[in-house]
Amino acid sequence: MGSIIWIDIRDRYGITQLIFNEAVTKTELVEQARQIGREFVIMATGSVIERSSKNQNLPTGEIEILVVALTIINKSELPPFTIEDETDGGEELRMKYRYLDIRREPVRKNLELRYRMTQEVRKYLDGQNFIEVETPVLIKSTPEGARDFVVPSRLHKGQFYALPQSPQVFKQLLMVAGLDKYYQLVKCFRDEDFRADRQPEFTQIDCEMSFVMSDDILNTFEGLAKHLFQTLKNIDFTAPFPRLTYTDALTYYGTDKPDIRFEMKISEITLLVKGKGFGIADNAEYIGGICAKNCSEYSRKQLDELTEFVKKPQIGAKGLVAVKFNQDGMVKSSIDKFYTQDDLLKWKALFNAENGDLLLILAGEKISTLSALSALRLEMGQRLGLRDKNKFAPLWVTDFPLLEWDQETQRFYAMHHPFTSPNPDDIPLLDTNPADVKALAYDLVINGTEIGGGSIRIHNSDLQQKMFSILGLTQEQAEKQFGFLMNAFKFGAPPHGGIAFGFDRWVALFAGVDSIRDVIAFPKNNAGSDIMIDTPSEISETQLKELF
Amino acid sequence: MGSIIWIDIRDRYGITQLIFNEAVTKTELVEQARQIGREFVIMATGSVIERSSKNQNLPTGEIEILVVALTIINKSELPPFTIEDETDGGEELRMKYRYLDIRREPVRKNLELRYRMTQEVRKYLDGQNFIEVETPVLIKSTPEGARDFVVPSRLHKGQFYALPQSPQVFKQLLMVAGLDKYYQLVKCFRDEDFRADRQPEFTQIDCEMSFVMSDDILNTFEGLAKHLFQTLKNIDFTAPFPRLTYTDALTYYGTDKPDIRFEMKISEITLLVKGKGFGIADNAEYIGGICAKNCSEYSRKQLDELTEFVKKPQIGAKGLVAVKFNQDGMVKSSIDKFYTQDDLLKWKALFNAENGDLLLILAGEKISTLSALSALRLEMGQRLGLRDKNKFAPLWVTDFPLLEWDQETQRFYAMHHPFTSPNPDDIPLLDTNPADVKALAYDLVINGTEIGGGSIRIHNSDLQQKMFSILGLTQEQAEKQFGFLMNAFKFGAPPHGGIAFGFDRWVALFAGVDSIRDVIAFPKNNAGSDIMIDTPSEISETQLKELF
Repeated sequence: MGSIIWIDIRDRYGITQLIFNEAVTKTELVEQARQIGREFVIMATGSVIERSSKNQNLPTGEIEILVVALTIINKSELPPFTIEDETDGGEELRMKYRYLDIRREPVRKNLELRYRMTQEVRKYLDGQNFIEVETPVLIKSTPEGARDFVVPSRLHKGQFYALPQSPQVFKQLLMVAGLDKYYQLVKCFRDEDFRADRQPEFTQIDCEMSFVMSDDILNTFEGLAKHLFQTLKNIDFTAPFPRLTYTDALTYYGTDKPDIRFEMKISEITLLVKGKGFGIADNAEYIGGICAKNCSEYSRKQLDELTEFVKKPQIGAKGLVAVKFNQDGMVKSSIDKFYTQDDLLKWKALFNAENGDLLLILAGEKISTLSALSALRLEMGQRLGLRDKNKFAPLWVTDFPLLEWDQETQRFYAMHHPFTSPNPDDIPLLDTNPADVKALAYDLVINGTEIGGGSIRIHNSDLQQKMFSILGLTQEQAEKQFGFLMNAFKFGAPPHGGIAFGFDRWVALFAGVDSIRDVIAFPKNNAGSDIMIDTPSEISETQLKELF
Repeated sequence: MGSIIWIDIRDRYGITQLIFNEAVTKTELVEQARQIGREFVIMATGSVIERSSKNQNLPTGEIEILVVALTIINKSELPPFTIEDETDGGEELRMKYRYLDIRREPVRKNLELRYRMTQEVRKYLDGQNFIEVETPVLIKSTPEGARDFVVPSRLHKGQFYALPQSPQVFKQLLMVAGLDKYYQLVKCFRDEDFRADRQPEFTQIDCEMSFVMSDDILNTFEGLAKHLFQTLKNIDFTAPFPRLTYTDALTYYGTDKPDIRFEMKISEITLLVKGKGFGIADNAEYIGGICAKNCSEYSRKQLDELTEFVKKPQIGAKGLVAVKFNQDGMVKSSIDKFYTQDDLLKWKALFNAENGDLLLILAGEKISTLSALSALRLEMGQRLGLRDKNKFAPLWVTDFPLLEWDQETQRFYAMHHPFTSPNPDDIPLLDTNPADVKALAYDLVINGTEIGGGSIRIHNSDLQQKMFSILGLTQEQAEKQFGFLMNAFKFGAPPHGGIAFGFDRWVALFAGVDSIRDVIAFPKNNAGSDIMIDTPSEISETQLKELF
């Protein structure tokens, strides 16, 4: 437009357009405006006027500011990537200049959402009479659980603190201390071999209550979840969240964190398939499948893709059997030589399949086949558009086993942690068949993601000692590591239980992003490094000498 | 009363009395009640009845519960100390059994106060449009400031993370990122040689704002302080907090954290005292004193105690001169042979002393004498009951020097930290006389305790580089340690500043306790150990091998 300059000014609250019009603006001012580059920090004074070409996508899109005075407060070099909603910067570059990345609205909105969630969490729990208590960060290393980060002590050479993987024992001690309803939004630490969606430091909503049964905890924290859905996503869950036992979750979804945004439940079909001469099936411990509605028209290519999918090493199935129930009533499969149309119609009945549907069947060892079916089910859900990020399907998974047997080390491990209470009905089984003991443990799962987990805890010193002994700790080891806790239980410990939520993951879910890195202001990369500040890094000789 | 048993039942909300009356209660129930020992966990059902002998000190002191059913949920061994407001347990024993100590009402009340303060801090700052952002705990070690705790990296052997002494650089990066008003209640860490009132981990209210001058920050956070006084202590500060420059604070109180609950200001009297043949005075750089109102009747013993006090090594005065202005107009001192009554009456005038007052005079090198006078002033304030824990006298101390010279290492250190902005008027002095440069730095002091401190920061890359060079860092060192920050300043950094409050200390002040240990759920002792969980402690060979 020749003599008109527009400049977008951006702050935390949005973007507003400045206008400099030579027809009415002093020439020096227009010249000054020409000096302004991207990301300059400026102060402008002027009149708010109606914009001739309105931008309905911006809250401030109907106005602009006719500038009468301008100060350049700070200049900027050209940023290494464009600071727009869609940027040309790759993840590494954006992480190195995270302070520029955060200027982008999608990143800022995620951090704002995260903040509003913390406020709503506190508002709800405060309203329920919970008290937030800070537990220590410099604690004691314990061999159970994941690997600890440790901190060498200078004053006690050769000794170490550890960073907490969770405030578990402290919150239990707070129950023994009579604080009855505790919570904390708290940083926790795990020295893992990093995976895509893990961070060495992460944030938990950590909670514990006294004088409760599982149901009290489920109801209280279902209330929290509903409050968050309501205040942050404007979704009202009026009905109770579904509850599914661990056994049923495995049976029908092949996983303890089912995505129930869509049905497509797994059905076992072992008996119908076996004994017809189809070798793979005849030798399988378990045969099961899913029914994909309206997929009978799947092409050879699509079925090949699915076969490739289930044969990936991380899924590990040997092959995939597909049975098409065509619209015209015809049944088509790759295993027609073993099964008659009548056989296949029995399969159809078992799955409640209709004409137009597609059965996908896997066979093999039970646990791994269920797990592969779970992956296949999610893949089909994805392909069929059944996993809408704006739809949320929470549920509780309950009655987890107390222990899992580890083949490699030939010992039991606690499925949740060693402080989880067995179901009182199952306590006799601890001596006879520990693998069958159920725990008073529960997870909150949303859209196939485990958002939180907890349990009723052991509050009896002898039972806790027994649990440690089942986990292979000698009495001496148990005493050395957890003596303070077992001792605490001797002085009038109330029954108690709690839950901890993975806060980063919950925010990511609400933000509709895949990685928790997108909801953390300064995340580490997959190697556990912050490339912006360059850490971890070497420390000085002086520091080393003082410590070691 | 023979057949009546009373039992106090305690929970987080208070104490209520249970009554078992053989006249109306079943014998088995009375027998069961006799089984109950101290700290047992019980469940009782009954009717609330009016108490015959009411206890007005308890909220529930007018009622008792006539029990009709009783369950012993958990037993207790006899606790190692009495769980009452006043306990027979020494600090070490109470720390070892901290979970029992917290059952004591005074300890629980401190933790509840702490929690309510966090809620009010968040409520106020949220209302001012601040956003809480979590900054990382695993950061980079920097040589400036106190000693870092470090965390060895397993994935990057030989490299370390450090735990933050404060989120300083991250909050500045958040300002560069455009978040404009940031806060965080955050754990910070300092590996110090422990002193009574320090903890290796402590909590800060950490804040930063963009586009502000000192006054904006002082006003905003004076608002926070007033909000906390109002909501937690029911005290309304309507007038602005006094503001005192660093120079005036030293001149009149001998310290940069004056307790202004009482006057008794220091006056310099060098010129009046010198040149009369009193050797100590004649050789002194500085002579000053305080006037203790209505203390002219102090006995020889009392004055000797004060002399002993100022001669303690940590105070370090050589001696104390006392001048009494008796009610009858007589002037008495230990130095009558050097000074006439007329001389001493001139002193009286300088201090605005009246009959009945006592002058206490110290002489020596200026800075150390002022510091000794400050200690003497606090001691007199204490003796005279002028330091009432229920009275609060906040003030701002401003205009700190930017740098302090360290005789031992022959270099300048940043008085606050290297990111503090010099007063723009003084920037030319950076080249000629750095010691005279004032900083845009301020502390909030309440009752002689530094509760918080902050500054306007440098937001210009060149000035930051110059600051590092004054602090003796080569360009290469500065680049290695803080290159990311100086680089960030090149991309349109807004002017910014902030403040950080020592939250533990603030809670302790409001709780009226002397040690921050009393307001921390699980504090470390003076050797940096938690004796309850026994940390720091040895870690396993496996862990050591993986790390080193």
